[in-house]
Amino acid sequence: MIVNMSTIATKKEIDHVIERIKECGYQAHVIEGTERTVIGAVGNGGRRSEIEALRAAPGVQEVIQITHPFKLVSLQLRQRRTVVDVRGVKIGGGDLVVIAGPCSVESGEQLRETALAVKAAGAQMLRGGAYKPRTSPYDFQGLGVEALRLLREAGDETGLPIVTEVMSEADVEIVAEYADMLQVGARNMQNFSLLRKLAKFARPILLKRGPSATIKEWLLAAEYLLAGGNANVVLCERGIKTFETATRNTLDLSAIALAKELSHLPVLADPSHGTGLRSLVPPMSKAAAAAGADGLMIEVHPCPERALSDGPQSLDLPGFAALMRELGQQPLKEVRAA
Amino acid sequence: MIVNMSTIATKKEIDHVIERIKECGYQAHVIEGTERTVIGAVGNGGRRSEIEALRAAPGVQEVIQITHPFKLVSLQLRQRRTVVDVRGVKIGGGDLVVIAGPCSVESGEQLRETALAVKAAGAQMLRGGAYKPRTSPYDFQGLGVEALRLLREAGDETGLPIVTEVMSEADVEIVAEYADMLQVGARNMQNFSLLRKLAKFARPILLKRGPSATIKEWLLAAEYLLAGGNANVVLCERGIKTFETATRNTLDLSAIALAKELSHLPVLADPSHGTGLRSLVPPMSKAAAAAGADGLMIEVHPCPERALSDGPQSLDLPGFAALMRELGQQPLKEVRAA
Amino acid sequence: MIVNMSTIATKKEIDHVIERIKECGYQAHVIEGTERTVIGAVGNGGRRSEIEALRAAPGVQEVIQITHPFKLVSLQLRQRRTVVDVRGVKIGGGDLVVIAGPCSVESGEQLRETALAVKAAGAQMLRGGAYKPRTSPYDFQGLGVEALRLLREAGDETGLPIVTEVMSEADVEIVAEYADMLQVGARNMQNFSLLRKLAKFARPILLKRGPSATIKEWLLAAEYLLAGGNANVVLCERGIKTFETATRNTLDLSAIALAKELSHLPVLADPSHGTGLRSLVPPMSKAAAAAGADGLMIEVHPCPERALSDGPQSLDLPGFAALMRELGQQPLKEVRAA
Amino acid sequence: MIVNMSTIATKKEIDHVIERIKECGYQAHVIEGTERTVIGAVGNGGRRSEIEALRAAPGVQEVIQITHPFKLVSLQLRQRRTVVDVRGVKIGGGDLVVIAGPCSVESGEQLRETALAVKAAGAQMLRGGAYKPRTSPYDFQGLGVEALRLLREAGDETGLPIVTEVMSEADVEIVAEYADMLQVGARNMQNFSLLRKLAKFARPILLKRGPSATIKEWLLAAEYLLAGGNANVVLCERGIKTFETATRNTLDLSAIALAKELSHLPVLADPSHGTGLRSLVPPMSKAAAAAGADGLMIEVHPCPERALSDGPQSLDLPGFAALMRELGQQPLKEVRAA
Repeated sequence: MIVNMSTIATKKEIDHVIERIKECGYQAHVIEGTERTVIGAVGNGGRRSEIEALRAAPGVQEVIQITHPFKLVSLQLRQRRTVVDVRGVKIGGGDLVVIAGPCSVESGEQLRETALAVKAAGAQMLRGGAYKPRTSPYDFQGLGVEALRLLREAGDETGLPIVTEVMSEADVEIVAEYADMLQVGARNMQNFSLLRKLAKFARPILLKRGPSATIKEWLLAAEYLLAGGNANVVLCERGIKTFETATRNTLDLSAIALAKELSHLPVLADPSHGTGLRSLVPPMSKAAAAAGADGLMIEVHPCPERALSDGPQSLDLPGFAALMRELGQQPLKEVRAA
Repeated sequence: MIVNMSTIATKKEIDHVIERIKECGYQAHVIEGTERTVIGAVGNGGRRSEIEALRAAPGVQEVIQITHPFKLVSLQLRQRRTVVDVRGVKIGGGDLVVIAGPCSVESGEQLRETALAVKAAGAQMLRGGAYKPRTSPYDFQGLGVEALRLLREAGDETGLPIVTEVMSEADVEIVAEYADMLQVGARNMQNFSLLRKLAKFARPILLKRGPSATIKEWLLAAEYLLAGGNANVVLCERGIKTFETATRNTLDLSAIALAKELSHLPVLADPSHGTGLRSLVPPMSKAAAAAGADGLMIEVHPCPERALSDGPQSLDLPGFAALMRELGQQPLKEVRAA
Repeated sequence: MIVNMSTIATKKEIDHVIERIKECGYQAHVIEGTERTVIGAVGNGGRRSEIEALRAAPGVQEVIQITHPFKLVSLQLRQRRTVVDVRGVKIGGGDLVVIAGPCSVESGEQLRETALAVKAAGAQMLRGGAYKPRTSPYDFQGLGVEALRLLREAGDETGLPIVTEVMSEADVEIVAEYADMLQVGARNMQNFSLLRKLAKFARPILLKRGPSATIKEWLLAAEYLLAGGNANVVLCERGIKTFETATRNTLDLSAIALAKELSHLPVLADPSHGTGLRSLVPPMSKAAAAAGADGLMIEVHPCPERALSDGPQSLDLPGFAALMRELGQQPLKEVRAA
Repeated sequence: MIVNMSTIATKKEIDHVIERIKECGYQAHVIEGTERTVIGAVGNGGRRSEIEALRAAPGVQEVIQITHPFKLVSLQLRQRRTVVDVRGVKIGGGDLVVIAGPCSVESGEQLRETALAVKAAGAQMLRGGAYKPRTSPYDFQGLGVEALRLLREAGDETGLPIVTEVMSEADVEIVAEYADMLQVGARNMQNFSLLRKLAKFARPILLKRGPSATIKEWLLAAEYLLAGGNANVVLCERGIKTFETATRNTLDLSAIALAKELSHLPVLADPSHGTGLRSLVPPMSKAAAAAGADGLMIEVHPCPERALSDGPQSLDLPGFAALMRELGQQPLKEVRAA
C-alpha cells in the first residue's frame, strides 16, 4: 500500500506514519518528492486494514491500495481456467452454454411446456424461480417447495440440469435437495451469511453481480465462496443501475471481458434482466457471446403477456428458438420425454 | 394503470388489451388520441401484475403505473407520523436523536470509553457492530456474540439504548436478546427473507437504504416489515453509489426530505458512511438536520487511525463533542456509571 | 399527455386542470378511478410545455409524457434507414465501417504511419484529433490547424475520408474546409449552439453520446441537427458514467440496439473511450458488431506508451491489424501511396 | 506519480519504465515489494502526460496520480478564500447570498413582478434565462436579446445585479453588455472553447457543475477560467445524474463541503434544478446553507403552472418569501421602484 501524505504534512506526522507502518508488520519505503512525501508499505502478512485506517492519521491525504485484494479467484495466481460441471454440462469449457426457462415457475404445465421447447431449441440447462425476491411484498412471491418439485420433474423429464435461486439461508438445504445448481440473486450478492453457508455445500453456484457492485466487489463475493470451500462458482453479469431509464438495467458487457481477464471463473450474461426489454434480448445475447461470455441465461415463457413476473423481458417459445438459430446453437433433432 | 399503445397498434391489438384488462378485474377506459390509443385500467382488487405483463402483448408500447405501490408506509393513507420508541428514546418525535459509537466493537475498553464519551457529549443511543458485512472475506468480520455482550454492558452502564446490525436470519434471535434496536444494513435492504423474519419480532428496526435502491424500493422494503407485523421502523439514508469517487458514497439528503413527504416513518442520516470522510461528517450532519432528518447515526472511535474498520470516516472523541455543540445538542452535566 | 391527480385532489383542482388543458389546445379525457382521477390531454398542435407545467398546479401528482418527443430521427415515422455517405464510404449500408487513427494528431510522421497501417489493415476511414477537449488546461490541447492540414494530407495519400472533432462554433468553417466528417464530442453533445451551426453545413456529422445523456436526450440532440437541415448524422456510443471505476466508462451496447430500434440513423461504437483499456477493445469491438453497430471507431497509435493522449486505450499497429482479422474485415492486398 | 507494475512484470519491463520516467524529466524511486515493484516518478516540471501514457507499456498494471492536478483553484496553495464582488454583492464573504428569479424571461411584466417580489423578500441578485439550453429543439428557446434588455431594466429598477446564462461563444459579447455575471450552464461545463473565451472577459462567472462531472473535473473547468485570466469564479452545485428517478437530479451537498475544502472559490447550491420538485426546494435550501454553501440560486415564478420552462420546480412568490423567512434572510422594509 501507498500512503500519500498531504503537502503540508509535518515531519512529526510523517514519522508517525512510518512508525505505524512498522508496527503493523510492514517495511516503510519513503519517497520524498518535491511537493509531498509518499510512503510505501512493503511486505507480506502485515495487518493491512490498519494501514488503511492510517487515512485517519494527521497529515495523511490518502491511502492507495496497489494490490488486488482477491486471491483464490485470481487468474494471475492460478493460471488455469475453471470449468464448472453441472451434471454433465460444462460451463467454461469453450462452448456457449444456454440456460433458459421462465422467470417464475407458475404451474406444472407452464414449466413442462417451456422445458420441452427450450430443450428442443438447444438449451443445455433449465432455469425457473421457486422463491422470488420481489420489490413489493404484494407481488407474487413464488410457489416455493412446490416449484422445486416441478423443476425436478421437468429436469428429469428433459435431462436438463436445473438452476434456481436460493434467497434464504434457511432454504439452502431444501433447494440443494432439488436443484443441480444454486443461484445467488443480484440483491443477495453481498449477503455474506448466505455466501458462507453456500460455501459449505457441494453444489455449483451461480453468482449474479449486484446492481451496484463493482467488478472488484463481485469478485470478492466469489472469493467468499472459494475461501469457504466451494470452488464451483460461475459468475453472471445481469446489468447495473445507471441513470438510463429506457432499459431496466445497463448490461455491462465489458465487465464480462474484464472479469475473465482478472479471474479464472466462467462468466455468463443475463440479457433478460440486463435490458428488461424483449426486443433487446437477441442483439445483447449475440453481443455477450462475442464479448467472451461462457454462456447465457435467458427468460422464456409460453405466453409472456400472462407471466406472473418479468413478462416484458421474456421471449416466447418461437422467439427463443429463433434466437438459438441465430446464435448457431444446435437444435435437437427430436425431443423425447425420458 | 395506463396502457400506452404503439402508434402502429392495430384495432385487434387494442381490443385484445381491453379484453385482458377486463379479465384481470379492472374496467377499461379508452382514450383515442390523434397519434395513439391509451387505455386506463380502473378499479381496485384486480390482478395488477397481469396488467404489467401486458407490456409483452403485441402493440403495447409501455405500461405506466400511476399509483404508488406502497400502502402501510404511506403518509397520505395514514395522515399521522410514527414515533418509534427505543427504550425511552423517541425517534420521530421532533427532537434530533443522535446515535453514536464505533463502527466495530473491538474490545470492552474501546467500547466503554466511546460509550461514556458519546453519552457525555449528548448522544441518546449507542451503536456498534458485532457482525460486520465486509467486502473482503479477509477483513475483520466482527466479534459476534462477544460484541453483543459488551454492547449490552455498555448500554446498561450508560443507560443508552443500543442498536447493532443483524446480518443473518440465523442471528436474529441472539441479536434481539441483547440489542434494543436491530439494524438492517444497506447490503441487506432487499434481503427479503431477513425482512420477513424481523417483521415477526417485537423490536424496533433501523432500515438502511441500499446503495442502489431508489426511494420507492426503500419504502417498499419497509413495507415488507409493516406488512409482516412490525410497525416500529426507522429509515436511514446512508449514501448511494454514483460516479463520484471523491466521496465513498453520495449522501442523498433530498431522499430524506422526500421520504418524509411520502411516508410517516422517521428518517435518519448516516453522514459517516454517506461521505466516507471525517472532515465532511460535521457539515453533512448539520445539513441533514436542516433537511428534516429525525436523527443522525455517527461513527466515533477513540483512535480512528487504529480502527479495525471505517477509521477514515470516524470522528474521534473531541471531534464528536465539538460537532454535538455545533448541533446545539445538550451535553450532559455529569456522567455517572450506573 | 396524462395528468395524474393526487388521491386527495379536490373537485375544484380537477376542474382547473381540465380547464387549463382546454386552454392549451387539447381535449381533456377524464378517467375517474377508485383512488384518483387521471386526465388525458388529447390532440395535436397544443402547447405541450404548458401541460408539463401543470405539474406545478395544486392537486397534481405528476404529468406523464406518453409520446416520444422526437420526430425527424424516428424510425417509426420514416420507416427507412438512413445511409450516410462520407466521400464514398457508406455508413449504415449493412457493412461494418471501421474508423481508426490516433487520439491526437501529434506529428506528420505519426499520423502518416498510422494512416498507412490502418488502411492496410482494412480501415475505411481515418480519425485524428486536431482540437482536443482536455479535462485539465495543462494537458496537450492539440495542434489545431496544423493537425487539420496533416489529416488532409494523410487522407489524400491513403484515400481514406477523415473525421475530426470540432469543439468550437468558431472553428466550424476551418474544420469543414479540411475534414470529410465533423465530430461532435461527448462533452459537447448538448452544446446546442454548436449543433445549430453544424446543422447549416453540408457535412456529415458524427454525434457522440454524452457521458450522462439518456438515449432519449441523445436522439433529441440529433433532432437538433435534422431540424436544422442536416440529415447526414451518425450516432456514436462511447460509454456512460457509472459507479464502476475499473473501466473509464461503461460502454452501453444496449443503447446501440435500442437507438437502432427507435431511430433510422446509423450507430457506431467507440470501444476505446468506452472502456479506456486496450485489452478490452477487441472483445468489445466484436460485441458491438454483434449488437448491431454499423461501425466502430478505434484509437490506434504507433507507440501507445508515448501517446500525448489516451495511450492506455490505444491499440498499437499490430494489435489493430489482429483485431481487423478477428472482425473478418478485408485487409488490403497492397497499399500504395497515391 | 506512481507506476504500479504487474506481479508478472519482467526485469526488462521494469527497467524500461525506469528509463522512460527519467526521459520524461523525473527521478525514478523504485520500491521492490514482495509481490510486485512500484516506481515513483518524483520531481517537478516533467512531462506528466507521458508518465500517464506508461499505462500502455508492457508490464504496467496502473499509473496512479497522487497530486491534485489543479493549481490556481486550490485552497492549499492560496490559503485565502476568494470573495467575488458582483456590483456590490459579495459572494463568499460570509453571508448567504440568494439569487432568485424565473427560469426563463417570458415577458417584461413577468420579470418585473418577480424581480420586485424577490427583492422585497430579501434576494440580493436576480436571475433569468435569455438563451435556454433545451433538451428538445421544439421547446421554448428563450427570448434572446429581448430578454437581456428586460433583465437589464429589471436589474436597474430594483438595484439587483443580474446573472444569466451564456450558451454560445458568439453571444459572450452581447450577454456581457447587459449582465453583471455570466453563467456557464451545466451542459457547457466542459465547453472549453466557451471557458477560454469567458476567461478573457472582466465579468464574474457562475460555473455550474456538469450533471456527470466529478468534483475534480468541476474544479479543473474552473481552472481553465483562472488560468485564462479570470479569477472571479463562483461554483454552483445543481445536482448530478444518478439512478434515482424520484428527483430530477441528485443534489450533492457533500460536493459543496468538499469543494470548499479543496478550493478557495465560493460555492452556491441550486436546489431548484437539484431536485426538480418545488416541495423539496425549502428543505434543500436550508440543508445547503447548513452544509456551508455561500449562497443559493432559486427559481421563482409568479405562476409556476404557466411557466414556459421548469414550472414544477419553481416557487411562487409567497412560497419564496416564506422560504426567505425560514432562512432568516432579512426582508426589506419597503421596496421602491427607482
